[in-house]
Amino acid sequence: MEISLNDLTFIEPVKDRLQQVEDRLHTQAAGYHPAIEAALGHLLSSGGKRIRPVLTLLTGGMLGSDPQRLVAMAAAVEMLHTATLVHDDLIDGSLVRRGIPTLNTQWSSAATVLTGDFLFARAAKLAAETESITAIHLFSKTLAIIVDGEITQLFGGRGRANRADYNQRIYAKTDSLFETSTTATAIIAGSTDDTKENVRVFGYEVGMAFQIVDDILDFTSQTEKLGKPVASDLRQGLITLPAIYYIESFPNDQDMANLIEHDPCYEGCLERLLTAIREGGSIEKAENEAKLHVAQAIDSLNNLPNCIERLSLIELARYIVSRNI
Amino acid sequence: MEISLNDLTFIEPVKDRLQQVEDRLHTQAAGYHPAIEAALGHLLSSGGKRIRPVLTLLTGGMLGSDPQRLVAMAAAVEMLHTATLVHDDLIDGSLVRRGIPTLNTQWSSAATVLTGDFLFARAAKLAAETESITAIHLFSKTLAIIVDGEITQLFGGRGRANRADYNQRIYAKTDSLFETSTTATAIIAGSTDDTKENVRVFGYEVGMAFQIVDDILDFTSQTEKLGKPVASDLRQGLITLPAIYYIESFPNDQDMANLIEHDPCYEGCLERLLTAIREGGSIEKAENEAKLHVAQAIDSLNNLPNCIERLSLIELARYIVSRNI
Repeated sequence: MEISLNDLTFIEPVKDRLQQVEDRLHTQAAGYHPAIEAALGHLLSSGGKRIRPVLTLLTGGMLGSDPQRLVAMAAAVEMLHTATLVHDDLIDGSLVRRGIPTLNTQWSSAATVLTGDFLFARAAKLAAETESITAIHLFSKTLAIIVDGEITQLFGGRGRANRADYNQRIYAKTDSLFETSTTATAIIAGSTDDTKENVRVFGYEVGMAFQIVDDILDFTSQTEKLGKPVASDLRQGLITLPAIYYIESFPNDQDMANLIEHDPCYEGCLERLLTAIREGGSIEKAENEAKLHVAQAIDSLNNLPNCIERLSLIELARYIVSRNI
Repeated sequence: MEISLNDLTFIEPVKDRLQQVEDRLHTQAAGYHPAIEAALGHLLSSGGKRIRPVLTLLTGGMLGSDPQRLVAMAAAVEMLHTATLVHDDLIDGSLVRRGIPTLNTQWSSAATVLTGDFLFARAAKLAAETESITAIHLFSKTLAIIVDGEITQLFGGRGRANRADYNQRIYAKTDSLFETSTTATAIIAGSTDDTKENVRVFGYEVGMAFQIVDDILDFTSQTEKLGKPVASDLRQGLITLPAIYYIESFPNDQDMANLIEHDPCYEGCLERLLTAIREGGSIEKAENEAKLHVAQAIDSLNNLPNCIERLSLIELARYIVSRNI
């Protein structure tokens, strides 16, 4: 498991509010069927990093958002994220997430689908508690983008190995919600258009870096640290940034061609490929790309209030590329 | 298939707006993956009755709602309904709905789950276009109630044959969205609390009648008319109102005891039971209960503006019990 955000100094300015978010999340199934409460408790207990709520709370602290509406937004973002994970893991047949068994390994598909739906409903309710139509609108659009991305991936088949496609994919999968976390927060704070744009860029750049690092960790981590099997992307024929750099450097690699074309790839090719990607400089190139996103994120904060939250956002951005690289 | 609402006079006052709702629904996947557009087209082409949008539009017409916000609400309600059907049919393994193949018979479970999710996102977006935080809040709560009802049914097992349970079940499954259709419309119209309560009762009573009649039709219809296999509820051990009346009249019926306890029920018992329920007066009792709900619905309109839409709402309420009984 990764280091807990609680051990990091940049959450300090929002520690109390983060606890409020946590409490708000945990009570969302109160009064409903006990099975939903149990499922929600299981999902929340898995020690997710809560990076999105932290990002939301720090942004809102910097911009002076109303605390109640801010906590609702942070909870809404995490709930939406959790709901999408429930359906994702079901669809992918994932067995483990964040080091604990996924819901779909313990429950029927039917119960898993419905639990995800319930969490969508609660995300929508929490979003409504921000009392901003514009934020709700953005929020619902983000869900459409996330799902559209998954459908595109589902129908796209294996081995699409181009950069435009990769960027679009990680934007839909991860980054759009990061971008919405900061942008919607500026909306509920009643910020100027310039400020909104600055924090949107911050969310966007941090989100891109976050997913690139996740994709790197899939190559470099150990299974127990990652909380899921290593190289699961490559195994599924999903070509992420390190593999794209590898293909650019070694366009005629036969193992990669086999992997892209076959399911599963021929005996031994995955191991050989993993070693080649790890040792061929592709990881470093992907790391540099993530660092570039983080630098651009930090730049976008230049004209924003010089407060403790702004400093913490810079620290958060740096943490994202330093996590395990 | 049932008679089209287009042939009924009570839609006359809202015919143009209903077309706007239809157009709005059809464009919700524009700009997203072609597979989603195809799925949405398939779902909307199935000739659903659009009873919820008609109810919404008539209520809004009576209360003088802003047309744009009203059309958004009517579309949101139908989209939410459609999204829940997609996941329902997947979970139940239903093959046919409204006389055409369900999405899950044509697509993988993964694609079906995601399509439902996309439609939830679009329902949320349409709800946001009503520009009423209170209406959005109610709308999200209704989704939680619907899903909670399905989870309760899923974990409840077969053969729960009591009336309180039945009422709760059909409230969650169907009626809550009818109630929200009228109540949210009064909210966006800025109606008084009295008016809100009156139309809430109308939506509630009409919704209860609607589901009771659906449950009766499951016993009395022919397969081709129903658009799905007859007696599918009883077959699954789902005890609806006609069966509850039957149990009250014949508490020692051995076939019913078998059906409740066994899955599937012993050879021949389903046929015998169907005949017994059809001929034993239970259908008539359930019909009378539906008619009582309709009478209460019509009563609730007493103090509302005497306009063409109010008369059409009365006609709509009467249509609900007269459909195929």
